[in-house]
Amino acid sequence: MLHFDDQMTFDFVAPHELDAISGQLELACRNLDQRTCLGSEYTGWLYLPDRENKEELARVEKCAKRLREEVDYLVVIGIGGSYLGTRAVIEALSHHFDAQLPSDKRSGPKIIFAGHQLSSDYLYDLKELLHGQRVAFNVISKSGTTTEPAVAFRVLREVLFRDASEDTFRKRVIITTDRQRGALRRLAEERDLETFVIPDDVGGRFSVLTPVGLLPIAVAGIDIDELLDGAASSRDQEIQDAELLEKPAARYAAVRTLLARKGYTTEILGAYEPSMRMFTEWWKQLFGESACKDGRGVIPLGVDFTTDLHSLGQMIQEGPRTFFETIIRFSNVRHEVLIPDDGTNLDQLQYLAGTPMSEVNDKAMLGTALAHVAGGVPNMSVICEKRSAFAMGELIYFFERACALSCLMDAVNPFNQPGVEAYKSNMFALLGKPGHEKRRAELENLLEERHRR
Amino acid sequence: MLHFDDQMTFDFVAPHELDAISGQLELACRNLDQRTCLGSEYTGWLYLPDRENKEELARVEKCAKRLREEVDYLVVIGIGGSYLGTRAVIEALSHHFDAQLPSDKRSGPKIIFAGHQLSSDYLYDLKELLHGQRVAFNVISKSGTTTEPAVAFRVLREVLFRDASEDTFRKRVIITTDRQRGALRRLAEERDLETFVIPDDVGGRFSVLTPVGLLPIAVAGIDIDELLDGAASSRDQEIQDAELLEKPAARYAAVRTLLARKGYTTEILGAYEPSMRMFTEWWKQLFGESACKDGRGVIPLGVDFTTDLHSLGQMIQEGPRTFFETIIRFSNVRHEVLIPDDGTNLDQLQYLAGTPMSEVNDKAMLGTALAHVAGGVPNMSVICEKRSAFAMGELIYFFERACALSCLMDAVNPFNQPGVEAYKSNMFALLGKPGHEKRRAELENLLEERHRR
Repeated sequence: MLHFDDQMTFDFVAPHELDAISGQLELACRNLDQRTCLGSEYTGWLYLPDRENKEELARVEKCAKRLREEVDYLVVIGIGGSYLGTRAVIEALSHHFDAQLPSDKRSGPKIIFAGHQLSSDYLYDLKELLHGQRVAFNVISKSGTTTEPAVAFRVLREVLFRDASEDTFRKRVIITTDRQRGALRRLAEERDLETFVIPDDVGGRFSVLTPVGLLPIAVAGIDIDELLDGAASSRDQEIQDAELLEKPAARYAAVRTLLARKGYTTEILGAYEPSMRMFTEWWKQLFGESACKDGRGVIPLGVDFTTDLHSLGQMIQEGPRTFFETIIRFSNVRHEVLIPDDGTNLDQLQYLAGTPMSEVNDKAMLGTALAHVAGGVPNMSVICEKRSAFAMGELIYFFERACALSCLMDAVNPFNQPGVEAYKSNMFALLGKPGHEKRRAELENLLEERHRR
Repeated sequence: MLHFDDQMTFDFVAPHELDAISGQLELACRNLDQRTCLGSEYTGWLYLPDRENKEELARVEKCAKRLREEVDYLVVIGIGGSYLGTRAVIEALSHHFDAQLPSDKRSGPKIIFAGHQLSSDYLYDLKELLHGQRVAFNVISKSGTTTEPAVAFRVLREVLFRDASEDTFRKRVIITTDRQRGALRRLAEERDLETFVIPDDVGGRFSVLTPVGLLPIAVAGIDIDELLDGAASSRDQEIQDAELLEKPAARYAAVRTLLARKGYTTEILGAYEPSMRMFTEWWKQLFGESACKDGRGVIPLGVDFTTDLHSLGQMIQEGPRTFFETIIRFSNVRHEVLIPDDGTNLDQLQYLAGTPMSEVNDKAMLGTALAHVAGGVPNMSVICEKRSAFAMGELIYFFERACALSCLMDAVNPFNQPGVEAYKSNMFALLGKPGHEKRRAELENLLEERHRR
């Protein structure tokens, strides 16, 4: 069961402050759970594991099983919420050198991501990698017209399926999209492709536990039932009959809201396991896109420890005093390694001979927390039993709920992202997309004016 | 030749402000170039490409050539400045799926990094990967006693060279360390290992153009002469006889210093090429560790575009108005990809059929800059001709110099990092390292006290 520990914030947040804010927390919880909050039409994620269509889940597992047998590569084509969560879970749970393992040490296809940027060099290299391999695509987009995945799908499809039979195309292209509308839905109907649904009431950054994430995660060989069980366990902790401030996500939301209001304007999320790096990227989208609007919001910053103690450690310890820190911890490692004996002791490490590495990592963690707290950086921990599918489910639900509650306590709609259209509409105008002529003229004037200055 | 463009800051920084700050800029340049600045004992990087020992450079190239022929894997064991720059250059210039390419499409060993954290799971997996392969180590540490690399070297050495002959050990372990002192120097002497020198007057985060970076970069098949030529070119731009504010790094330092003093307290560095991600990590250490001390400094934040426009784009466009943004641009791609025709136009992308992807990426870049500027985020660009070893050299020198000048303009020593010891001394105490008994007792009291609260 997930555990939240805020002992290392006691120097920064007093009990009476938590009491005082509990009214706002309660209001936020009530509005969220009764689906009367801001953006309530996007709160479907609250009930995801339960309401998950059993039939669709079975289809996900069946499709994943088939792909695991039939292909060498699954290319997941998606961006933002159709990319980060999937990659986060897969990287957190895979062998650290998964893609390099010889095929006899692998049990399924390699997962590759595409359509998450516009680099021609990337697609060129990817085409080279995939040449002659058995490849399937999972194309994930609600509208089917998002530029990055649409470009990648055009390019890769042309190369890999130009001469393929209709039957091969049908077996190798799986669509995850809107239930009824959009370009991919139409393509799927025309070509009779297998499809999975992105629910209407779940926004992109909350969608990893829908087929958006579940299909590729299952193809990677990860137990999605266990993942969903983890999320359900975390949800049970939040909706059980208990003191609100005893519930992990609720308490985390309260503490971080208090810290933010005191001027701790940047939150650092990190773990002491390098495979968790993409998880912090998922978290950055979740909190950045949900909370940072109308000129405010806590800036999310991801770190890998102890790696980044040797790069950003100086800044955290002695830089601007506007940081607070949340650490994801695992009580147990998957594989222990003992530090070997070396009698020469040239490296002055002999005092650790025979010590489990996990103990050294744990002491680094505790030593760092104490150092950062002493330096003025409040520190919290989210603790799971071990790096497992269950734990990823727990963490996903925990952070999603804490994010929603934090936003609602600040009277911010957690579920929209009005600012992401600005660059797109400029890009369309500059590229000459039909219908964007007026904006194009405006931008051309603006650029000319800049040029004259 | 590297080009710096700050046109998109003109709405935020007026010409008279640049004039007004030029005196401070000039002072910083003079103190840096005459090596009379704060921390002047660590300004060796200023002259790196020139003063580089020709004999040592030839040895680096010879050793790299030998390793490229003799091994399947080079494991680079280092952390912080002995890790980030090397990995940044290698990833920026390698095939995007380098490690997955079949051996007939590769020209040398795969490069793996270790000793940059304390995860036992990582080392366990790495041992599995390396089992039965021809492996060499490049162990990089000034003192030879830094915990992370020392632990990794003990563990990996024990597994891979337990039964190896002295001769094999000598051929497969290359040491990069202090000229005279330290554990690795002694080991090298005792076992007669090949060594390369970390110069005394170059700090870790400024060391990528020393053998620290050059050896593994050369083993990866990258032309280190070209890399050094790029750095020399960038340096020539800075020391030529010209207006100070016409020099790229000097001007960048002036503009970012002005922005920081106006309250733009977070700098975002990004590129529109995913292979530049580790370069932003290198940059984060460079600026974070150099500038963030005594309770201040600009917070460095790295992004991958367009990927992160779909995760942090909302925050940049409409979040707290404390960001400024610096974009690394390349005028040319390495491989162009044209967007294929698809008459169905389901994806509404047909207006781009036949368009080079690089054009779409460039328009995304321009559209984003215009959107961010309109949203109140000043935007600068650093432009290189293409993603090459030469460009990496240019960028490294440019950012190193701009970093040093920025710190000096703020009367901060760019070359120390007093805050990185705090976590280490706690960790040593908690682990029971001899000599740390007093701190251990203090921490135990502290923890007990916390526990009672």
